[in-house]
Amino acid sequence: MLNTLFWIVPACAIVALLFAWIFYRNMLKESEGDETMKRIAGHVRRGAMAYLKQQYKVVGIVFLVICALFAWMAYGLRLQNEWVWFAFLTGGLFSGLAGFIGMKTATHASARTANAARRSLNDGLKVAFRSGAVMGLVVVGLALLDISLWWLLLDHFVEEASASEKAIIITTTMLTFGMGASTQALFARVGGGIFTKAADVGADLVGKVEAGIPEDDPRNPATIADNVGDNVGDVAGMGADLYESYCGAVLATAALGAAAFRAEASQFNAILAPMLIAAFGVVLSLLGIFMVRTREGASQQKLLRALDKGINTSSVLIIGASFLVVYLLGLSYWICGSIIVGLLTGIVIGKATEYYTSHGYKPTQGIAKSAETGPATVVIKGIGTGMISTAIPVITIVVGVILSFLFATEFDLKFVDISKGLYGIGIAAVGMLSTLGITLATDAYGPIADNAGGNAEMSKLGKEVRQRTDALDALGNTTAATGKGFAIGSAALTGLALIASYIEEIKIALARMGTTVLEIGERTINTVDATLTDFMYYYDVTLMNPKVLAGIFIGSMMSFVFCGLTMNAVGRAAQKMVQEVRRQFREIKGIMEGKSEPDYARCVEISTKGAQGEMIFPSLLAIIVPVVIGLIFGVSGVIGLLAGGLGTGFVLAIFMANAGGAWDNAKKYVEEGNLGGKGSEAHKAAVIGDTVGDPFKDTSGPSLNILIKLMSMVAIVMAGVTCAHHLL
Amino acid sequence: MLNTLFWIVPACAIVALLFAWIFYRNMLKESEGDETMKRIAGHVRRGAMAYLKQQYKVVGIVFLVICALFAWMAYGLRLQNEWVWFAFLTGGLFSGLAGFIGMKTATHASARTANAARRSLNDGLKVAFRSGAVMGLVVVGLALLDISLWWLLLDHFVEEASASEKAIIITTTMLTFGMGASTQALFARVGGGIFTKAADVGADLVGKVEAGIPEDDPRNPATIADNVGDNVGDVAGMGADLYESYCGAVLATAALGAAAFRAEASQFNAILAPMLIAAFGVVLSLLGIFMVRTREGASQQKLLRALDKGINTSSVLIIGASFLVVYLLGLSYWICGSIIVGLLTGIVIGKATEYYTSHGYKPTQGIAKSAETGPATVVIKGIGTGMISTAIPVITIVVGVILSFLFATEFDLKFVDISKGLYGIGIAAVGMLSTLGITLATDAYGPIADNAGGNAEMSKLGKEVRQRTDALDALGNTTAATGKGFAIGSAALTGLALIASYIEEIKIALARMGTTVLEIGERTINTVDATLTDFMYYYDVTLMNPKVLAGIFIGSMMSFVFCGLTMNAVGRAAQKMVQEVRRQFREIKGIMEGKSEPDYARCVEISTKGAQGEMIFPSLLAIIVPVVIGLIFGVSGVIGLLAGGLGTGFVLAIFMANAGGAWDNAKKYVEEGNLGGKGSEAHKAAVIGDTVGDPFKDTSGPSLNILIKLMSMVAIVMAGVTCAHHLL
Repeated sequence: MLNTLFWIVPACAIVALLFAWIFYRNMLKESEGDETMKRIAGHVRRGAMAYLKQQYKVVGIVFLVICALFAWMAYGLRLQNEWVWFAFLTGGLFSGLAGFIGMKTATHASARTANAARRSLNDGLKVAFRSGAVMGLVVVGLALLDISLWWLLLDHFVEEASASEKAIIITTTMLTFGMGASTQALFARVGGGIFTKAADVGADLVGKVEAGIPEDDPRNPATIADNVGDNVGDVAGMGADLYESYCGAVLATAALGAAAFRAEASQFNAILAPMLIAAFGVVLSLLGIFMVRTREGASQQKLLRALDKGINTSSVLIIGASFLVVYLLGLSYWICGSIIVGLLTGIVIGKATEYYTSHGYKPTQGIAKSAETGPATVVIKGIGTGMISTAIPVITIVVGVILSFLFATEFDLKFVDISKGLYGIGIAAVGMLSTLGITLATDAYGPIADNAGGNAEMSKLGKEVRQRTDALDALGNTTAATGKGFAIGSAALTGLALIASYIEEIKIALARMGTTVLEIGERTINTVDATLTDFMYYYDVTLMNPKVLAGIFIGSMMSFVFCGLTMNAVGRAAQKMVQEVRRQFREIKGIMEGKSEPDYARCVEISTKGAQGEMIFPSLLAIIVPVVIGLIFGVSGVIGLLAGGLGTGFVLAIFMANAGGAWDNAKKYVEEGNLGGKGSEAHKAAVIGDTVGDPFKDTSGPSLNILIKLMSMVAIVMAGVTCAHHLL
Repeated sequence: MLNTLFWIVPACAIVALLFAWIFYRNMLKESEGDETMKRIAGHVRRGAMAYLKQQYKVVGIVFLVICALFAWMAYGLRLQNEWVWFAFLTGGLFSGLAGFIGMKTATHASARTANAARRSLNDGLKVAFRSGAVMGLVVVGLALLDISLWWLLLDHFVEEASASEKAIIITTTMLTFGMGASTQALFARVGGGIFTKAADVGADLVGKVEAGIPEDDPRNPATIADNVGDNVGDVAGMGADLYESYCGAVLATAALGAAAFRAEASQFNAILAPMLIAAFGVVLSLLGIFMVRTREGASQQKLLRALDKGINTSSVLIIGASFLVVYLLGLSYWICGSIIVGLLTGIVIGKATEYYTSHGYKPTQGIAKSAETGPATVVIKGIGTGMISTAIPVITIVVGVILSFLFATEFDLKFVDISKGLYGIGIAAVGMLSTLGITLATDAYGPIADNAGGNAEMSKLGKEVRQRTDALDALGNTTAATGKGFAIGSAALTGLALIASYIEEIKIALARMGTTVLEIGERTINTVDATLTDFMYYYDVTLMNPKVLAGIFIGSMMSFVFCGLTMNAVGRAAQKMVQEVRRQFREIKGIMEGKSEPDYARCVEISTKGAQGEMIFPSLLAIIVPVVIGLIFGVSGVIGLLAGGLGTGFVLAIFMANAGGAWDNAKKYVEEGNLGGKGSEAHKAAVIGDTVGDPFKDTSGPSLNILIKLMSMVAIVMAGVTCAHHLL
């Protein structure tokens, strides 16, 4: 069940990985600078690797336990496909690998970026951006490679009566490796997020506020931990996260394609479409990456334009490519509408994110202004503004959902063919993420520039070097807004697609259990012929079924409780960090005079321990709750849970990301000399706002995106058990 | 269509109002104390009345506009029942009246409570509690009176072929006066909440933090405004709010009863059941109120026990009364299960609220402890703990929903008779609110005690008087936790019942439009015979319909945006207050030495203007959004909106209420001498946490409860328009 076009997918994956390798080698050829720079980079690198080792150990144990359970469910209870445990494992492995490679690159790149920035801004940009591109390309390359390999494997082994049923089995089985990726991603985001923010909050509170020393000052014992945190949270965490998003979108859409086009000749092509769009996106991302280069001595404005040009070119060309894909596969051209809607949705959300979080606009300036009346009003205003900022993204997603649905059904305003419409929503998510290779590059280079700045500060390089790395960092913040828009938007769309895929899994589970006929009201339908809507009625997934309502309530609550747990985890770990830094200032004589070196390693250890201890419970909760709800309330309760979690989680995630980002930039606005500038009372208040926002934007907020999808993935994998056993 | 039992309802209403009047007269007989006390009480009273006058003027205009629109829809477009505009008006009127009487009582009671507290704690309790009871009794009395009068009126005028259809028309028409009550309540809560918190935040920030003077110090220019705020926000706002909750629960349940028992002889009795339970609850509340009395010189422990005894007696007796009601009406005894479930749900949520917000327990102590590392960690910990605290209430509500549903369907585990089950959920809400007369009394007396304390402070009464009023206030905080649990829990249950009632309205709207037959799949059903589930399928209100999903997203967003708008409104108004207080300290010489009086009136004016200007937009949004969603997405979109708003709004409301309450008590914990006590760095940090929490717990949080129900009420009133006109 292959055609020649399929081979484009692994080919593009290999091209992406090849270029990632070339960029990596080229980066390594750069000089790491003087001895101090190397020593500091070494500290950070070792700290990061030590953390990751510890992290993988803990996650490894969790994976082994879950795999054992899956194996038991497959071979013992016969409630699950026997591929699941293995798929789960590979998903986790590849996701972790993407994060690992990204982080390895980043920790090698920071000193080199700082050193290149000694020569010129442009050189700094090149090293940092190409290193970011390594992660971008590794994520998309590994994802497409994993998808291709699984397809080949399952195509070889799965035996079904008809090609059509075989395609459905293959695509739904492949979805289960998404659960592995999501699980790994959640641990990486939560663990990394707790690590980085415990260090950041601790360093800021004692360093900036109490001792009055600048950020990244080598006298601050938590400063190395802070830099390690940028790598394990913002790089390794983000890599695993977006690997998960990308795979999730492609796989869910493939599964929906298999179901929606079940009875049609184009079924295989509908499955291939998301993969091909992604594959073309990889090539266009590469093209965009190569376009990011400016002449020597370019202004920051020009640098931004260079980055924008890269992203915009990829985005525009992907529209053309989508027409090509549809032409090659012989699908309806209406599908291209869904792709364009997806791209536009991502762009609008990105722009809205920028508006609400950049200090060039009113909302963030308003937050900064409220710093004049103290920290309480900064916090109130930040929360208020963050909440209001959810309006545009949500309305955009709603319009995107409706339009991509309608395009895929050729504007059938009666909303009859739900399956095809949902396929359109999936396609929109794939379109949004198709240029991930370059958008992730612009996102990942931010922490590299940030770390380069830290290195420059600690190595006491000239002020102009720090200014250049700051410029690079600021540039990264602007482009990262777009990246965040895409991440959040795609999570919502993919979340919807995954709920639909869940029903497909239920169908297969029923068939495995021998339920060949469904009785719906007075009708009797063959299970395999039942549409999505039929299943909705069969399980009474309407909004007046108390089981559905119970699920919605619990889903909404889950988002909040999960956020609360991760917020408190950061708070607890940060408090320990604060106490340790205070202790070192008190006990190690001569730190403040720069005569003796603080105990950096101890701070790294505190963050590591804090993160490892705290990440387990919230992450396991995300896995256990859908199982428990399934066992109590059955299928309708699970769908309620997923819908409630998606609705609340999506809005909460935007709120937390935007409030956090706005506080961060409000502080920067004050630091640029507004409202009294550094050292003023307003600045102190703004720093407190920024500190509150740290776990918002880098721990709880981004983890929510994964939570939404992981709960769906768990539901999908457990579909067989839910069908067979439930209380109500 | 009346039987003798019906007359119990207006009779109990009149008894309640009579006792309210007696308590009011008795309170007025107490002395208001010396000249200073009278003068200060006069300041507060005039400020509060001036505010309320302004508030009613603005709300009056809104009501007139909406009434005109309703009249046009009824007489011009023929899309609405012609009673609606008038019902809307009376609902608003009575709700406002409940708030007004409560506030008038409170402003007369505060100086009298302070004066009585000069004699003894017990005397203070008696005056304050009986004054609180005035509001409790007025709310339930007016509500039952309004309901009875409307019933008599409609029974006289409505003409329908069958008694059964007539009952349905009457109950659904009566629901529309709930919209008037909800609209009035939302304005009262939002306006009052902004007023009180702008004053409170402003007074605290400049007074406590900057100038270092205690709370309620007469040198603080915002202190009168702060006391006015307690009256307009916590008393008038709460009165209107709970009037709305109480009516909403009774009316929605009556409408569901009419529908669920449509074809049965017991239809009228099912309608009467919620009214009778409420009526018996009034009498038992009165009994409880009379039980609250202690001997002279009783300890605080004993006082608490006295209050508890009153509440517990009413609660236990209402269980007995519910069996009596069911017996008298000849309904199934299973219904009593739903009532008991409702009561227990309220109690558990109340206990959970107490656990998470009282400083006798770990969570709040943990927040206080995090004050040692500064304001940022206090805020992070408060938000984290608040989010986690949503778990128990949500799980309790889920269990409550499922159990009250199952009881009402005699444990039909197939969940077939959705209508009867939803009636059970409504009955649970009524059960929960049945003892509102006394729970509201214990809630409303808190602000009276608070104001008495303010009066004592400003009148420079002896320290022991302030200690006594503080003890009364603290007592109120504990019992108020239970009250809040009931308010939040009943909002969730009533919200569900209202969504179900919406479908009933749709049925009537379809009949009015001449749609006598529904085609659902291959079936054809008479509109009047269609069940709730049939309607769900007819409009495809399943979780895979993109219109439903769009509604859920928008509903979730609405909760956040509404909260954000009200938070920012408080922030803006508070900033103006801060600037004004700073200006007075700067410009009016001798304030700090107590030689010249600050300009209190100017601060009251700032809060009034701030509140009036800021309350319009968020309140109107709550009315407009359901209409717009209906016009675009039709019935399925509206139900999605209501479910999404309910799920997210409920959880968000608990989060905001608990986080705010916990911050408040964490500050009190420090002030009691823990962690360094007053004046320490930890105290400063805790005050900032408390200030952030002010709009959480007194503006945004409680308004959300009303938002949820108001959106449903708007949808119900606009059902005809939505049926006739929608885009998709």
